[in-house]
Amino acid sequence: MTIADMAKSAKLASIQLASASTEHKNKALLIIAESLESRKDEIIHANAQDVKRSTDEALAAPLLKRLAFGADKINDVVQGIKDLVGLSDPVGDVKLARALDEGLDLYQVTCPIGVIGVIFESRPDALVQISTLCLKSGNAVMLKGGSEALLTNRILADIIEKATLDAGIVPGWIQLLETREDVGAMLGLDQYIDLIIPRGSNAFVKYIIQNSDIPVLGHADGICHSYVDESANLKQAVELVFDSKTQYVAVCNALETLLVHESVAKEFLPMMAEKFKEKSVKLNGCAVTQSIIECMPATEETYKTEYLDYEISIKVVSDIEAAINHINTFGSGHTDAIITENAAHAKDFMMLVDSGNVFWNCSTRFSDGFKYVFGAEVGISTNKIHARGPVGLEGLIIYKYKVIGHGHIAADYATGKKHFTHTENKQIDSPYL
Amino acid sequence: MTIADMAKSAKLASIQLASASTEHKNKALLIIAESLESRKDEIIHANAQDVKRSTDEALAAPLLKRLAFGADKINDVVQGIKDLVGLSDPVGDVKLARALDEGLDLYQVTCPIGVIGVIFESRPDALVQISTLCLKSGNAVMLKGGSEALLTNRILADIIEKATLDAGIVPGWIQLLETREDVGAMLGLDQYIDLIIPRGSNAFVKYIIQNSDIPVLGHADGICHSYVDESANLKQAVELVFDSKTQYVAVCNALETLLVHESVAKEFLPMMAEKFKEKSVKLNGCAVTQSIIECMPATEETYKTEYLDYEISIKVVSDIEAAINHINTFGSGHTDAIITENAAHAKDFMMLVDSGNVFWNCSTRFSDGFKYVFGAEVGISTNKIHARGPVGLEGLIIYKYKVIGHGHIAADYATGKKHFTHTENKQIDSPYL
Repeated sequence: MTIADMAKSAKLASIQLASASTEHKNKALLIIAESLESRKDEIIHANAQDVKRSTDEALAAPLLKRLAFGADKINDVVQGIKDLVGLSDPVGDVKLARALDEGLDLYQVTCPIGVIGVIFESRPDALVQISTLCLKSGNAVMLKGGSEALLTNRILADIIEKATLDAGIVPGWIQLLETREDVGAMLGLDQYIDLIIPRGSNAFVKYIIQNSDIPVLGHADGICHSYVDESANLKQAVELVFDSKTQYVAVCNALETLLVHESVAKEFLPMMAEKFKEKSVKLNGCAVTQSIIECMPATEETYKTEYLDYEISIKVVSDIEAAINHINTFGSGHTDAIITENAAHAKDFMMLVDSGNVFWNCSTRFSDGFKYVFGAEVGISTNKIHARGPVGLEGLIIYKYKVIGHGHIAADYATGKKHFTHTENKQIDSPYL
Repeated sequence: MTIADMAKSAKLASIQLASASTEHKNKALLIIAESLESRKDEIIHANAQDVKRSTDEALAAPLLKRLAFGADKINDVVQGIKDLVGLSDPVGDVKLARALDEGLDLYQVTCPIGVIGVIFESRPDALVQISTLCLKSGNAVMLKGGSEALLTNRILADIIEKATLDAGIVPGWIQLLETREDVGAMLGLDQYIDLIIPRGSNAFVKYIIQNSDIPVLGHADGICHSYVDESANLKQAVELVFDSKTQYVAVCNALETLLVHESVAKEFLPMMAEKFKEKSVKLNGCAVTQSIIECMPATEETYKTEYLDYEISIKVVSDIEAAINHINTFGSGHTDAIITENAAHAKDFMMLVDSGNVFWNCSTRFSDGFKYVFGAEVGISTNKIHARGPVGLEGLIIYKYKVIGHGHIAADYATGKKHFTHTENKQIDSPYL
């Protein structure tokens, strides 16, 4: 099958899958969970081959760690699927019901988007999470994982496909791509694919946007900021900034740039620098910062850098407005926090910072779908339309309008023979939705 | 100012406008309405010049009609603004409130998208409608109207800009582009512009998508279908199809293709052909249709055609599944109707047809924002993400997550010192939102 054939097959399947009942989809999810458990040995065997090959190819240690998919991680994804079964079905939700006239009723009803193309990193658990989120939301999916996980992804996709066939789900709804050429082909198939979700760096997301006419839900870099206001509790600020930066450096919601109000910089920066020594955090500061603590010089480029490491940019700002401007200029719209005891400042900051997650007096590390209790997540979107921040099931859903009439024609309203009555709050129940 | 300067200015304004209160925005809207009335003569004078120039340039009659902007149309847009003032503010709506732990609260709050670029046709009323919808929803806007309406658009934009300055709204929120080169420049400014709304043909929308990295909310062709099922009330079907096709042929929700179940084709098609004679509708039919009524032959191209005229494609299908497949293959995802007395067929059709508006026993002409009581509309979206169908204020809105803590750090939860409590249905009120 060519990639176009696979996409066409997914499109056809997506139409049928859109009408699958909640019970049917949940049953299929539980069969997937059972199959993952019963075929655990096959998965572990395939993954061991991937890990061995990648070790031979000298894959970096953090990536090897992400690639490993043993019994514990299998248990985790199985539990994740069971949790997903417990979530309410996002499809078929009646968001609006309105009688336009006697016997002419308008309904806005949620429905799946259609075919989702997802390009994700080396973690094989992502394949299970994303495909089961798509199944629960009634979407067909085309998946391209990291090439390091080739054999693991193959067996996982096989298990999921067979389990859903056993459950009577339409074939073709899940398609596995394996090469970069496959991805290139997928990007041109806007007649079949409705949304691309690329998970990776800003540059990667940008590449996808520039090379496809398909809408993109970008999960891009997190250049996250913490701003220590003049009214901050400085002791608390030290703990918050330290946690935001160092609790887990390799993730998109880790802190990358620290902004400090000039009136507290002389007191705060030495405390912070001392604390950072615990984890040997490398400091890159503006001229004022350099005059207060020992650090390397920061440049414009520094402020656009996502370190994902024990390194940070520091800038002293004249006021909250300068902090907000800096974030809106250099940030990536991911997660930004203010540390202050001044509620008016906090309110302004959360209003004016143009990011998906805006925080007050807490660590940037809280922006994630699990901590927000959204269930498994497709990614953290830095988009400004459709879905923003941690995206779970609701990001895979759109709606359609259904109008049910009894021979109503527009001419009767144009000529004044009939008039729209527009009754609000009509009883939402209809046997025909 | 270059287009980039204008976009940058709009971006800066959008940040401030996002925090404008409902009262402030409504006051500004009312001042716009007053100014449009008090400067009515200037508008009419400018429009007369546009109409004269376009007449001299032999602009087609339907376009001239759209271009005309006299006292009646000014009254209409003024009334539209007053209606808009009455609509509730879509910004600041708390969609979700959840205590993640004691003193750590998550809120999902609606906010404007930012800067919207809109490219619209020759109707000057579109400029007023779109810019006031953007103002009400707190978005900055870059507008490019039809070049025929150059002078009318200039005076309208001037009135709106001055009125909002008088109302104390941040300058720069409305920007008027005038040439195709301006549009070309705008398409490259994804660092400032968050969404492009192009109103026009499929080809035009496709051109915009292919030439910009900015997300696009497409208002494209309507290749709308009516399917006359085997269980249709044929007399009713004749009236519905006639109204869908002929009540106003120049609009995107007018019928373009008629599908007829083979078991009723021999009875229905002659009735329909007779009725179509009233408006001299030109018929293009498949082979079976040609064997029943007099018509021109239809081809694959025929089924992809949006006539916007007294002309229609007709195809006889073997069953409802074939009808649904035809629509999902040749349609544009706009508006498609089934005519049947069989409720199960209607339910299947509305579930399986992948369009923004799916109708049962009514005219396709009902799919519009006014008839749905959405207030003025930005367009009818054929997108599958963000907003679909008639799009009003809600299509100009996204959300951000606000998390308010009291020094909460992620390490405490990672080490098990603290646990997420995830209290649902937390009191939504917060003075800090």
